[in-house]
Amino acid sequence: MTPLVIERVVKWGECDPAGIIYTPRAIDYATEAVEVFYRDVVGIDWLAMKRDHDIGAPTVHASCDYLRPLAPNQAVRVSLVLETIGGASLTFRVECAGEDGQVYFRAKMVSCITDFAAGRAAPVPPRMRERALAYQEACRGL
Amino acid sequence: MTPLVIERVVKWGECDPAGIIYTPRAIDYATEAVEVFYRDVVGIDWLAMKRDHDIGAPTVHASCDYLRPLAPNQAVRVSLVLETIGGASLTFRVECAGEDGQVYFRAKMVSCITDFAAGRAAPVPPRMRERALAYQEACRGL
Amino acid sequence: MTPLVIERVVKWGECDPAGIIYTPRAIDYATEAVEVFYRDVVGIDWLAMKRDHDIGAPTVHASCDYLRPLAPNQAVRVSLVLETIGGASLTFRVECAGEDGQVYFRAKMVSCITDFAAGRAAPVPPRMRERALAYQEACRGL
Amino acid sequence: MTPLVIERVVKWGECDPAGIIYTPRAIDYATEAVEVFYRDVVGIDWLAMKRDHDIGAPTVHASCDYLRPLAPNQAVRVSLVLETIGGASLTFRVECAGEDGQVYFRAKMVSCITDFAAGRAAPVPPRMRERALAYQEACRGL
Repeated sequence: MTPLVIERVVKWGECDPAGIIYTPRAIDYATEAVEVFYRDVVGIDWLAMKRDHDIGAPTVHASCDYLRPLAPNQAVRVSLVLETIGGASLTFRVECAGEDGQVYFRAKMVSCITDFAAGRAAPVPPRMRERALAYQEACRGL
Repeated sequence: MTPLVIERVVKWGECDPAGIIYTPRAIDYATEAVEVFYRDVVGIDWLAMKRDHDIGAPTVHASCDYLRPLAPNQAVRVSLVLETIGGASLTFRVECAGEDGQVYFRAKMVSCITDFAAGRAAPVPPRMRERALAYQEACRGL
Repeated sequence: MTPLVIERVVKWGECDPAGIIYTPRAIDYATEAVEVFYRDVVGIDWLAMKRDHDIGAPTVHASCDYLRPLAPNQAVRVSLVLETIGGASLTFRVECAGEDGQVYFRAKMVSCITDFAAGRAAPVPPRMRERALAYQEACRGL
Repeated sequence: MTPLVIERVVKWGECDPAGIIYTPRAIDYATEAVEVFYRDVVGIDWLAMKRDHDIGAPTVHASCDYLRPLAPNQAVRVSLVLETIGGASLTFRVECAGEDGQVYFRAKMVSCITDFAAGRAAPVPPRMRERALAYQEACRGL
């Protein structure tokens, strides 16, 4: 298992009339990285969670520091580190860096495993916890 | 001067296949409230800042707590309180509440006045500071 | 019954680095006008259609002519005319005009009533047809 | 020179509460394919056009037929064929197909070369025309 890194190129339509990425689009990048974590690392995507188990992993907290502006056509690498595994939540750090390693933004995203029918938090399922622990181990030192 | 409150109805296209607002869309709501602040309260919109003065007020920090899920067609009120006026930055608290006052999400947004040519922070211009102080006064107690 | 007109102000985040509305955002405007038609004119919103009847009214065709560029902060009026009521479809004309009546873009949107379980088109339900006919009558001459 | 094909995976946040891609997102896919054409085929991206020459290639017409619904996690191939080279415009056909070749949506996008200062159409520049002709040749039979 290796830490996730998603390569993207900043799109014209993600930028605003100042020529830089529009604030909420960074949260799109971070949310999409978390989406890939559930699908490719845990092995259950958000659609299957909802359809097959009526659970989800909605974001209950997001925060982002915008360190340097991003412009159209910049190639970036979005990396995702799993920082904390709680009883019902996973806390991620998402960094968006250039090819030279300079960080453009750094986000923190907290997902809460949610039982939609009950409308409340639910324990991280055993297999998800196992995969999350293995991913956390793979991220050690990042 | 009265505190800003923007009435919105959650749109179908702002929600995801779980039937709730997609995480980054709350940051859209918050960013749009800050946009209205500059245009209607300070009296200079982001386009005029850029075009006439080559300055801007990009968001350097955004964070959001998602307290209750929002679904399509819900009517909400997005309110904006100016919490802190720094040397080069303004810090806002944005709340999205239902008609009954229940808060769905609460965001913190920090704008940094930026000199685009120099690529660095710039002091809050005097007239902007004056308007910001008046707005802060109007928000007292909220 | 009166023809729908939705007042909007073009947002900073809807525009691109050329300072004009980003192409797909006009389709957002048009889709949102159609969404309001079902909710406010027909009296059944897309969420209730899906949840209560497992039907929907997805767009099967969209087209748009971009006649004049739109910039941030422009106030526009988005109007919706129901042009044709077919066996299973409704065809709309959506125009986005300035306060002086100048048209910025003109879209055609075709919704097809769809039975999601069967995965195919379904007849326009009688009450929807009745409301649609009344709306079409209200639009006469536009 | 080979015809452009962009591989994408439909994202959760691109889909609506019916679990299918939200209408305007298909126009995002198509616009982004046209963006790649200018950057990678013509060799001048939209940012450089604007900044260095004060020209652009805004979309003046977009249309789309939605043939089959797309759901989250579906892998698709977005292909772009250059159909017509006019005096001031380029007309593209964009198709989004599954790995089995089934077409989900088919769009037509017309870009008009625009002189922003003059606010009007401008002839396709010679080098752009040359590259466009070569691309059109590469698309022959598609």
